[in-house]
Amino acid sequence: MSVRLITLKELEASIDRQEIKKGVSDALIAHAKGWIVSPQPGQLYFKEPVGDCHIKYGHTKGSKHFVIKIATGFYDNPKRNLPVNSGMVSVFSAITGELEAIFLDEGWLTSWRTAAAGAIASAALARPDAQIIAIIGAGHQAELQAAWHADVYPNASFVIAARVFEKSKALADRLQEKGLTAKAVANIEDAVASADLVITATPASSPLFRAEAVKTGTHITAIGADSLGKQELDPRIFVRAACIVVDDAAQCLHHGDFGFAVRAGLVRTEQCIALGSFLESQASRVRKQNDITVADLTGVAAEDIAIASIFLATSSK
Amino acid sequence: MSVRLITLKELEASIDRQEIKKGVSDALIAHAKGWIVSPQPGQLYFKEPVGDCHIKYGHTKGSKHFVIKIATGFYDNPKRNLPVNSGMVSVFSAITGELEAIFLDEGWLTSWRTAAAGAIASAALARPDAQIIAIIGAGHQAELQAAWHADVYPNASFVIAARVFEKSKALADRLQEKGLTAKAVANIEDAVASADLVITATPASSPLFRAEAVKTGTHITAIGADSLGKQELDPRIFVRAACIVVDDAAQCLHHGDFGFAVRAGLVRTEQCIALGSFLESQASRVRKQNDITVADLTGVAAEDIAIASIFLATSSK
Repeated sequence: MSVRLITLKELEASIDRQEIKKGVSDALIAHAKGWIVSPQPGQLYFKEPVGDCHIKYGHTKGSKHFVIKIATGFYDNPKRNLPVNSGMVSVFSAITGELEAIFLDEGWLTSWRTAAAGAIASAALARPDAQIIAIIGAGHQAELQAAWHADVYPNASFVIAARVFEKSKALADRLQEKGLTAKAVANIEDAVASADLVITATPASSPLFRAEAVKTGTHITAIGADSLGKQELDPRIFVRAACIVVDDAAQCLHHGDFGFAVRAGLVRTEQCIALGSFLESQASRVRKQNDITVADLTGVAAEDIAIASIFLATSSK
Repeated sequence: MSVRLITLKELEASIDRQEIKKGVSDALIAHAKGWIVSPQPGQLYFKEPVGDCHIKYGHTKGSKHFVIKIATGFYDNPKRNLPVNSGMVSVFSAITGELEAIFLDEGWLTSWRTAAAGAIASAALARPDAQIIAIIGAGHQAELQAAWHADVYPNASFVIAARVFEKSKALADRLQEKGLTAKAVANIEDAVASADLVITATPASSPLFRAEAVKTGTHITAIGADSLGKQELDPRIFVRAACIVVDDAAQCLHHGDFGFAVRAGLVRTEQCIALGSFLESQASRVRKQNDITVADLTGVAAEDIAIASIFLATSSK
């Protein structure tokens, strides 16, 4: 058995955001069409210190490979000067079951595909002329969301707001160093109220802002709620939404923000549409100027398969 | 991040069957006591070629590590001169979520802990003076079961019977080369009828022998049915059993042989006892001479955690 080991360094050297966005977008469409075999993800939860582990796995029907992605999030790690996320991705032959490759990606493939999915959802749903983009959260994924959204909205200004202002300030500074227009604000609702596009990327366990804070015409892409116990959005925002998009209805009902709104009786399951279906039919949709729209993303194995396949092909070249 | 990679060669160089049996036995007891956090395993099924993948994962409560085990079985592999099983085992910190070690074990840790569990179940349940041990199946796991049972029953004779006689003959020859007394027989029911102890280790999808073929006083350890669609035992054997042991009741009901008997209304769920509970209370149990007993094993994450922990400690020395 000869296993290819691919390190984070190699991945960083060959990353192509456009290619990843294309791959993840196609994967979301394939997921919505039922072309991906991906059983319910495995989850482990840890209390002391607080952490979680997701195992997402599956394969595109007829593909020669299957992919098993392991991603961890341990939220006290910054106190130890360690990144919150870690993990690995393994690729197996769907013909022989042999292990073919391991990405020692330290969680970055998950981070990148999540950033890609966020940018894809926003690009599909938000106003194309969005000027102010609020990033709620100041961690690793919040920073990636800003960078990947800047590709889509090169002229937008970023407003950063998080629980701890110093962290928002530090993120705004880092974004400015990268040439983006960015500022930190202390109050999350102020940031939201000013924005045409809001991205939430936190490990919050209760709503980050009231539904009333959202102005008409705003799109919200919610990234953070990816396991039980997490919540970012005021469920009442779904009542105001003209369009609710989910990456996977079952997952979003189980542990996404959408589930809170459905369980509260505020909206019905049938009111959501799969992001992949939305992307495919996008040409026929026109956003009305004052529509509020919401995308609830929990992350699907299809995205992990897509990004692993892209880097597998790149590293074989 | 520095990840320790441990190859099969290193594992083979340090294997200690007694230590593994002790560790797996303790793990089965811990599993029965609820000391192991191990969500339902992940499973993938492949049709062309026929294969499956199991993901078993979890941690001992309070442990510093958690373990994710991936094991594949692709049953046409021998046609390609490849082993049926493959896989890998990864160990993560339960404090930081960091990947600490990868066992590139090609499925062997699973094979060994499965062999250990089989031998543990037989040692606990079968007659201590078992003379004839029938091994049903002639593959990789059947061979391991013979070797690990020979540790427990050094004076027993092995009778091998499988679907293809040539394979049984080849396995009997290999066992004889290792100094065991072994012969192959063409008819599975003949082998079963002659035995005090029967071990089934096949990927069969229907019963291998009729319940009537089993003589009184025989113990059966059934290893093969580890996922949906697999079946080795005539469900009626459970009616004849004075004691039914399972490694995990939920798993055995879902995809073990025991589930077929329960669904057929032949036995009730409450008639089984967890192997770990049995092992702990073993001193107070006496097998009656004519008792038929059955152990249905589907494999639990506790075993994977145990064997990974043993080799992790060994490789750190």
